[in-house]
Amino acid sequence: MGRKSGRFIVFEGGDGAGKGSVLAAAAEALRADGFDVLTTREPGGTPEGMELRALLLSDAGHVWDQGSELLLMTAARVQHVTRVIRPAVASGQIVLCDRYVGSTLAYQGGGRGIALPLIRQLHQDFVGDYWPDLTVLLDIPPAEGLRRSRRRLADSATDEGRFEGLALDFHERARASFLAQAEETPERFMVVDAGPPLADVQADVLAGLRTWLQTSLTTG
Amino acid sequence: MGRKSGRFIVFEGGDGAGKGSVLAAAAEALRADGFDVLTTREPGGTPEGMELRALLLSDAGHVWDQGSELLLMTAARVQHVTRVIRPAVASGQIVLCDRYVGSTLAYQGGGRGIALPLIRQLHQDFVGDYWPDLTVLLDIPPAEGLRRSRRRLADSATDEGRFEGLALDFHERARASFLAQAEETPERFMVVDAGPPLADVQADVLAGLRTWLQTSLTTG
Repeated sequence: MGRKSGRFIVFEGGDGAGKGSVLAAAAEALRADGFDVLTTREPGGTPEGMELRALLLSDAGHVWDQGSELLLMTAARVQHVTRVIRPAVASGQIVLCDRYVGSTLAYQGGGRGIALPLIRQLHQDFVGDYWPDLTVLLDIPPAEGLRRSRRRLADSATDEGRFEGLALDFHERARASFLAQAEETPERFMVVDAGPPLADVQADVLAGLRTWLQTSLTTG
Repeated sequence: MGRKSGRFIVFEGGDGAGKGSVLAAAAEALRADGFDVLTTREPGGTPEGMELRALLLSDAGHVWDQGSELLLMTAARVQHVTRVIRPAVASGQIVLCDRYVGSTLAYQGGGRGIALPLIRQLHQDFVGDYWPDLTVLLDIPPAEGLRRSRRRLADSATDEGRFEGLALDFHERARASFLAQAEETPERFMVVDAGPPLADVQADVLAGLRTWLQTSLTTG
């Protein structure tokens, strides 16, 4: 395979869609295929981003204006793209990232109602014209996703329940936004039904990724 | 005096200009005059803003891209204006604030070189068209200001030395930006020479504030 540069692949989807597990399984399989894979996530991905993640996602204490929330998400993304994602892709790595600007469009835009052009302009001004080569969208009805997500939160020590605590309606709007993004640029999205058992979803995604990588890396 | 609403007065100037001391003395004197005075500062002013202040100003550990720095400063300002400044002014208080968007224009704009229209647009989009009624600019040559500021840092337990550690050239550009802002809207600035002994500067500022408040509150 004539790989000149890496690829930037983002996993998006509602809470409880299984992004984390599917991403981890894909990374393991692609590494076994011989790819140099870097996994990362947002918000976070850098020491500075992790500080912002803690401020943003903790459901204990801080109350952020929705504008502030968007600014902090974007600040974490600036650090992440500059320090981690761009250099990794430039060095030939396949970057698998859990959430990116698609989540900002879905949650701060679709969910909270901030105008999409403002979010896009902020991305352009601060992150730059930098978008994923492919987005794997794990689609699940929010009622089912939140059921899974809350079970996971209850079983773990995390306090990152900020978004899970919002109304179902908020998550319905976020899902609609994700699907609208996929419709807008279908050539850059792989939409996968996350309803089936996890192993089946993982297999679907991996098959799709292998096909996409083969095409992308031989043509691009 | 027919006061229908409060006033928003910002103290700006380079490090070591004495903003903190002059602001505190002005607050005490104006309270003795019978004004309802609220003192606050940026970055900070809210619990969320204080978290961002710690992330931004500590010279230990975090390395922020200049775009991220601007976004965090603005996020802290959104929280501060929404939760503290606007409600206080609306309730009739005289708000004395140590730094505001003028510092962002001076440090992130003049100092770091971020385009001023981008900073102004970000302010407009997220904070709104909300500017001080009056800015007291304490002007001091950076070489002298930094000498004072570093002495204060050495004598205290703070680790907020991030900006003090930057080159003199950076601070010269910030000073030029402050002075340019004052020239652009002279009716909203009081420029005070911060070179003389502190007690003299405090007296100058207080006299100027009393005159301004009398005019502003009887005409506005």
